[in-house]
Amino acid sequence: MILFNSDYIEGAHPAILEALVRTNFEQTPGYGEDRFCEEAREIIRRHCGNSELGVQFLVGGTQTNVTVIDALLRSYQGVISADSGHINVHETGAPEATGHKIIAVPSPDGRLTLQQIRDCYDGHWNDPVHEHTVQPGMVYLSCPAENGLIYTKKELTEISDFCRTHGLYLFIDGARLGYGLQAEGCDFTLADLARLCDVFYIGGTKVGALFGEAVVFSDKEMQRSFRYAIKQHGGMLAKGRLLGIQFAELLRGGDDCLYFKLARRADEFAMRLRAAFEKRGVPMWIPSVTNMQFPALTKAQQEKLAEKYLFEVWGRYDDERDVVRFCTSWATSEEAVATLCNDIMNL
Amino acid sequence: MILFNSDYIEGAHPAILEALVRTNFEQTPGYGEDRFCEEAREIIRRHCGNSELGVQFLVGGTQTNVTVIDALLRSYQGVISADSGHINVHETGAPEATGHKIIAVPSPDGRLTLQQIRDCYDGHWNDPVHEHTVQPGMVYLSCPAENGLIYTKKELTEISDFCRTHGLYLFIDGARLGYGLQAEGCDFTLADLARLCDVFYIGGTKVGALFGEAVVFSDKEMQRSFRYAIKQHGGMLAKGRLLGIQFAELLRGGDDCLYFKLARRADEFAMRLRAAFEKRGVPMWIPSVTNMQFPALTKAQQEKLAEKYLFEVWGRYDDERDVVRFCTSWATSEEAVATLCNDIMNL
Amino acid sequence: MILFNSDYIEGAHPAILEALVRTNFEQTPGYGEDRFCEEAREIIRRHCGNSELGVQFLVGGTQTNVTVIDALLRSYQGVISADSGHINVHETGAPEATGHKIIAVPSPDGRLTLQQIRDCYDGHWNDPVHEHTVQPGMVYLSCPAENGLIYTKKELTEISDFCRTHGLYLFIDGARLGYGLQAEGCDFTLADLARLCDVFYIGGTKVGALFGEAVVFSDKEMQRSFRYAIKQHGGMLAKGRLLGIQFAELLRGGDDCLYFKLARRADEFAMRLRAAFEKRGVPMWIPSVTNMQFPALTKAQQEKLAEKYLFEVWGRYDDERDVVRFCTSWATSEEAVATLCNDIMNL
Amino acid sequence: MILFNSDYIEGAHPAILEALVRTNFEQTPGYGEDRFCEEAREIIRRHCGNSELGVQFLVGGTQTNVTVIDALLRSYQGVISADSGHINVHETGAPEATGHKIIAVPSPDGRLTLQQIRDCYDGHWNDPVHEHTVQPGMVYLSCPAENGLIYTKKELTEISDFCRTHGLYLFIDGARLGYGLQAEGCDFTLADLARLCDVFYIGGTKVGALFGEAVVFSDKEMQRSFRYAIKQHGGMLAKGRLLGIQFAELLRGGDDCLYFKLARRADEFAMRLRAAFEKRGVPMWIPSVTNMQFPALTKAQQEKLAEKYLFEVWGRYDDERDVVRFCTSWATSEEAVATLCNDIMNL
Repeated sequence: MILFNSDYIEGAHPAILEALVRTNFEQTPGYGEDRFCEEAREIIRRHCGNSELGVQFLVGGTQTNVTVIDALLRSYQGVISADSGHINVHETGAPEATGHKIIAVPSPDGRLTLQQIRDCYDGHWNDPVHEHTVQPGMVYLSCPAENGLIYTKKELTEISDFCRTHGLYLFIDGARLGYGLQAEGCDFTLADLARLCDVFYIGGTKVGALFGEAVVFSDKEMQRSFRYAIKQHGGMLAKGRLLGIQFAELLRGGDDCLYFKLARRADEFAMRLRAAFEKRGVPMWIPSVTNMQFPALTKAQQEKLAEKYLFEVWGRYDDERDVVRFCTSWATSEEAVATLCNDIMNL
Repeated sequence: MILFNSDYIEGAHPAILEALVRTNFEQTPGYGEDRFCEEAREIIRRHCGNSELGVQFLVGGTQTNVTVIDALLRSYQGVISADSGHINVHETGAPEATGHKIIAVPSPDGRLTLQQIRDCYDGHWNDPVHEHTVQPGMVYLSCPAENGLIYTKKELTEISDFCRTHGLYLFIDGARLGYGLQAEGCDFTLADLARLCDVFYIGGTKVGALFGEAVVFSDKEMQRSFRYAIKQHGGMLAKGRLLGIQFAELLRGGDDCLYFKLARRADEFAMRLRAAFEKRGVPMWIPSVTNMQFPALTKAQQEKLAEKYLFEVWGRYDDERDVVRFCTSWATSEEAVATLCNDIMNL
Repeated sequence: MILFNSDYIEGAHPAILEALVRTNFEQTPGYGEDRFCEEAREIIRRHCGNSELGVQFLVGGTQTNVTVIDALLRSYQGVISADSGHINVHETGAPEATGHKIIAVPSPDGRLTLQQIRDCYDGHWNDPVHEHTVQPGMVYLSCPAENGLIYTKKELTEISDFCRTHGLYLFIDGARLGYGLQAEGCDFTLADLARLCDVFYIGGTKVGALFGEAVVFSDKEMQRSFRYAIKQHGGMLAKGRLLGIQFAELLRGGDDCLYFKLARRADEFAMRLRAAFEKRGVPMWIPSVTNMQFPALTKAQQEKLAEKYLFEVWGRYDDERDVVRFCTSWATSEEAVATLCNDIMNL
Repeated sequence: MILFNSDYIEGAHPAILEALVRTNFEQTPGYGEDRFCEEAREIIRRHCGNSELGVQFLVGGTQTNVTVIDALLRSYQGVISADSGHINVHETGAPEATGHKIIAVPSPDGRLTLQQIRDCYDGHWNDPVHEHTVQPGMVYLSCPAENGLIYTKKELTEISDFCRTHGLYLFIDGARLGYGLQAEGCDFTLADLARLCDVFYIGGTKVGALFGEAVVFSDKEMQRSFRYAIKQHGGMLAKGRLLGIQFAELLRGGDDCLYFKLARRADEFAMRLRAAFEKRGVPMWIPSVTNMQFPALTKAQQEKLAEKYLFEVWGRYDDERDVVRFCTSWATSEEAVATLCNDIMNL
């Protein structure tokens, strides 16, 4: 059985493991204050073109989302999010567990528009009894979105401008950021994100690391407070070095760093799958350009592919077909892709 | 500089890293539902002599403490803890952040007595307006305590009996459990803990793992609910296999498993340090039998040792001396201990 | 200016004030343990035909909602509610502030159907990773709903049956319960609610009291825990007697008690308004049978009525008309209704 | 039986009830935006000598404490309080339920000293891993303290200066503020408090009102945010006018306003009780100058007084005596005091 059901089904890129083995007996301080984390911070600041950025490392995505939200918002503020946003759907109410309502906006394509954000903001402040409703305090975007779509630099810039002029934090969930940045047609960079967001993160777990998310703050002061929030939310890894070592390994270098290479390869594989499906006449639910592809398959097609592959049923497409999800990742082999493409053509 | 300041300053025992490398490309489901976690669960159940136990794996101690507390308690219940308990002192108010007050009881030696628990319980229920105060719902013990002391089986049994007959959960924080179980004079086993507690954990982070705590529930039902709590608190590791692999490696076998061997060795090293200090006439703050030793050193003695060693200043002992902490660990070398013993004798 | 904008714009029915004056200097214990509260509890139990019911008194609706939700749910559970439910819209995220997500279900007519509840429940438990989503723990119904509609006994019975067999609490927000119970066509009673729900409340604030909500629990054990929750949420009124005195005054007697008489009168007034609007050819947004009526008025009509009356703009009806809300209450005068009906006919 | 066990055992001063009756049918907006609340705000601003102050009205003390704490603090901040502080002892963990730890400082006399606050602050910031502990964000003082003692203007000024220069909010719980302000020897005024604190409240519940606490903010901006927090914590009274009417009635006028007169009278009564106890040779636990007196009585003395009076047992004094509490209030009659004094002399 070949697994295409998600992008966290293997361990880590071998270079990561080698780095962990190599550094294993070096003694360091705990909690992310070691030289490896410092190095990784510097590397990230260079990618972002800003030596003043705050950078902290956490273990996983839900933990990161909830820590950022709770650290920045006041108790009576909530987060504007697409209703399909990960924080609204698949985190067991973690943001609410810290007291913050998600102001969920219906989003047909998994992304938020400036207009939706504006309507949400205006709706609150034009309400004569606005203090009876949750005050919007943050905009949360996933990039890529949960369905693989990405924003354009223009869209991000407009949203960022609106947030800055209206007192809203802009927070980008980058659990799969690499796959977004390296996608065909992506016109923004880490430096753009660092400039446009208040806070975003570079996801490691799904792009080559054993685990880890690097949170980048535009404001160093935030970083100070954020360490309290990390500890309070149980996210302060004792051997913080493990995160520093991994991110240094992934991001060392420029556009040819391991992180980008792995993501690019997975995106290319995904585009091959998409091409195969399209050639075979299978409709695609969403024109995803990243490592997740969503063909609409009949039950018979699903059964046939399920003999050899694991994939995820995502939802209903029409009376005869379901949307299913195939993920490639940094670990996907050329052979697996070729075999699957072949089997798709013979559906 | 040789570091004795804590037991999480290196990576992991090489066998752990080898296991991670060996299994790296095997594809598995996420979130702790893989075959490695299943194996580790079975191993732990065997150590505990109970095939019905629930076992879940988390990344770190604070995360584990707060998840257990929040999963089990009702919103108006609190936790009885020694005032020196880790949850009360060094977790940035994480339990309170989930809504639960810590009912902190002054404890000169870092341990709770049955009498203190009883007084606390009676004090609440004899109060005619007890609903104006937090209802005790759980007893939290650290074992070893933050100062290295352990409980006896008799003490644990009496506390357990009281908790069972009075509707209190008994929860043991075992962040350093191995060092306790292998200490000279320790008269209880994992099986005893599994029998006496509602929930306890086997700490990996400080005893040979890269990271990880194995939570053991006496009740399988709890385990089901607990997975929601883990996810909500951001503790559901995507590649849960990393925890299963580590704990299987550490605990595979019987009394000679790696976990016990590493802990025993560190305890022996610690006892050598203690013997050296005592021989030199340095007073010990607490008669710790585990891997943390707390000699009372003059400023001059501290300065001398600080030339070669890193250790932690813990508090004031008397007008002339401070309590300091030296930790050994699974990674401490025989040479480092010998050198330090020698330097102690020449203080 | 005559106010029809809400049902809490005056003080209390004079009989309430007289009772407060009459009992003012009697010395009583605090926190709802006085003889007045005991009397009111007994009266409510008689109305409900069950001498075993738990009854507690709180000051306001949001406080009551949030206390019930937090007292009953586990930390990882949420509340199924119509998206228009008061807890989801107008409580500044109070339930989320206690950690509980509202599982909001789109509801065109402000009420939940059994099918919606079932879909929500099945959707959760059929999800293979259900622990990544909030577990439904309670169903919240407002009765009357925020738009004035009521449920039928058959609907409530079916929902209750489903909740009981599926481990969901059924909680009915009765902030305007009197207006529902006395509405033409209402076929259930307080005794029915006490039998069908786990917890519901009899709203006083909007039906003749200065303030106050009487929470009724089907289970006395719940009541014991609930007093902790009341205190923790800041809802334990020191002079709890004020609530007992008011509810005893409102509910003393049978079907002719003050509470029912006041509600019936307000409902009748509301039906006169509705009849006038309909006679005049004004479309009604919703066929409300309770004290809130929602005509769809053109801007010109609104302006004309706004010269003499205060009412609330509720939303958009069509290109030319807005839905507006007119409320009658226990305090509305016959004259005010007659004048308004006359002005409606002359729109 | 004559009740001296607390100061909230009767209704309200008759002038309050008359005002409620008088205004009962006036129609007003809800939620504290009516003309009565506006009037009360102006009156309070005049007492405080500052027309810029924010003023909001809440129903009870616990609700007020928790709303202020949660509105002002960041998620990782806690409150420095005497361990005997009401928020730490008798609020069922309400502050913790909003996520904020109480940094409880042992206080022999129920008051905090500048030195204790400074030690607590320095202890945090000098800790090299301070982000592992709760950051002090606020100082909470009760005035009078739970044992009836008051601060001096000098003490308050020094604490205020320290708070301002160290980024700590200063919050004074004034549940019994009137009894403090009118006590013999009190050398500060409402205007002083308004100048020295960030926020304090004027307690109505225990000083003549049916219920109500008037929260005063030095900063109008805080007041805006605070309304969200009030609603979120279930403290937004629908008929907010009830609070405005009461505080206007209590505080209208200058030093001769009803609030001060009632408090002064209760304090004088309390001093007569104290004088009687002292004359009779009964030791006083604490030299309280306010409406609560704490004599140390033998069991025999308690039994004798218990035949006619209700009072509260507070704690142990020595092997033979308990500390008991007698409260006078705005409602205590001259006759009751005279009778009790007589009975004390005959103990």
